[in-house]
Amino acid sequence: MTETQEHRGEPDTERPRARLFIGADLAPGVTVALDPRAAHYLRDVLRLGAGAEIALFNGRDGEYAARLARVGKQTGALEVMAQRRRQRAEPDVWLLFAPVKRARIDAIVEKATELGVLRLMPVLTRRTNVARVNLARLAAIAIEAAEQCERLTVPAVDAPAPLETVLAGWPDDRLLFVADETGAAPPLARRLDAMPGSRAAASPPRWALLIGPEGGFAPAELDALRQFQFVTPVGLGPRVLRADTAVTAALAVVQSWIGDWAERPRS
Amino acid sequence: MTETQEHRGEPDTERPRARLFIGADLAPGVTVALDPRAAHYLRDVLRLGAGAEIALFNGRDGEYAARLARVGKQTGALEVMAQRRRQRAEPDVWLLFAPVKRARIDAIVEKATELGVLRLMPVLTRRTNVARVNLARLAAIAIEAAEQCERLTVPAVDAPAPLETVLAGWPDDRLLFVADETGAAPPLARRLDAMPGSRAAASPPRWALLIGPEGGFAPAELDALRQFQFVTPVGLGPRVLRADTAVTAALAVVQSWIGDWAERPRS
Repeated sequence: MTETQEHRGEPDTERPRARLFIGADLAPGVTVALDPRAAHYLRDVLRLGAGAEIALFNGRDGEYAARLARVGKQTGALEVMAQRRRQRAEPDVWLLFAPVKRARIDAIVEKATELGVLRLMPVLTRRTNVARVNLARLAAIAIEAAEQCERLTVPAVDAPAPLETVLAGWPDDRLLFVADETGAAPPLARRLDAMPGSRAAASPPRWALLIGPEGGFAPAELDALRQFQFVTPVGLGPRVLRADTAVTAALAVVQSWIGDWAERPRS
Repeated sequence: MTETQEHRGEPDTERPRARLFIGADLAPGVTVALDPRAAHYLRDVLRLGAGAEIALFNGRDGEYAARLARVGKQTGALEVMAQRRRQRAEPDVWLLFAPVKRARIDAIVEKATELGVLRLMPVLTRRTNVARVNLARLAAIAIEAAEQCERLTVPAVDAPAPLETVLAGWPDDRLLFVADETGAAPPLARRLDAMPGSRAAASPPRWALLIGPEGGFAPAELDALRQFQFVTPVGLGPRVLRADTAVTAALAVVQSWIGDWAERPRS
């Protein structure tokens, strides 16, 4: 990125060689230990040695520059330097999704993280035919995607729960868009345009999106969903989308509409 | 899909066991030969035998029901029956994208097909570091995605060409949105809202979207792009998106905005 021109008059900050999510508190002058994943990544993948500069974030304190003090096979230490970015919250959007096969569930987690989802909630629907979810893998994918996409937070990844259970404990003030492939629902963008309150309201609503399994929702399930006040069924166009495509497409329209996309990348 | 309820008063047409793209002309009573790919898929993957009903489309004549007359290891024949759907054009949207590594270029083609792109154009930019593109594989992915997503057309997949060459021959009446990750451009949705002409205009504009390589555009390249009248740089939000995420996200916003998503799936 060294040849990047500066278009907005801000200081020309080079993108660091690496950007790591870390659990420790971050403040100038603090020394933080590397966990084995980070040590391996910096030493064996990026081949960085003592003195290299990277960036750190922990989801709470913003992003900091840090200098690699030492790095071994499993351990190491970083000296935290100046803050690079202040902490910034993602829009309050949850994603509920039926677990699908491995490559596509990985894509769902990666894409939802890149598109700023706060919380990832695997839900078991009647036609969900993938029962086992490797939560540790999904959490790792979320961390890597957050590191890569310059987020300052990592989304929570919930354990899978039956859809009925999740709906039974649903917070009344959170809108839930349900992707309805039967063709019965108006398109997502039209539903958004009809929402009360402006896009840039001072206390914007809280949002959630539910994408069903590849086989769609069972009709009784969809009827039950429609009974909830907080549920709005929406259409995602005339073609039948794969689950991971539907997640990315619907989140892009929501984030674009609610104003998240009015924010711009820093670099 | 047998338990699908009917929400719009149309006949309850079961979704066929398979949906195949085929080169032959389609009309009631015609017999069409199966190519080896189709014969293998119907016989060995779906384990269908003579008498099974599937659906066919060729990008010109709409979708037809067809009955499997015979199927062997490499050959077979289908009897074309009634038309199921009339031909329908996709919105006139092209996708220009810098080739990326295998899994992500495959995803770009699959997602763009699902989101209704008419023409897929790999373009070589300064920071494109993937020189070889397996066009036959990409074309096969486009066909499979079209079959799966219920499209009535298959997008064209062009041979890779240098971006300069493509721009030099650009048709003046086609708008080109360029995803600009530098943070200098207003968000895509805001640019769309500022477009002349309504979303449902009788002769809507023709569109194209350019997504650069993972390393972004070179500054000089972006400056050159901005000189073209037909180019509009756009932002895709505050996070740095992977190329395949950017394709899906931007196409969803465009298709949603230009009215394609006002159409609904048939089933």
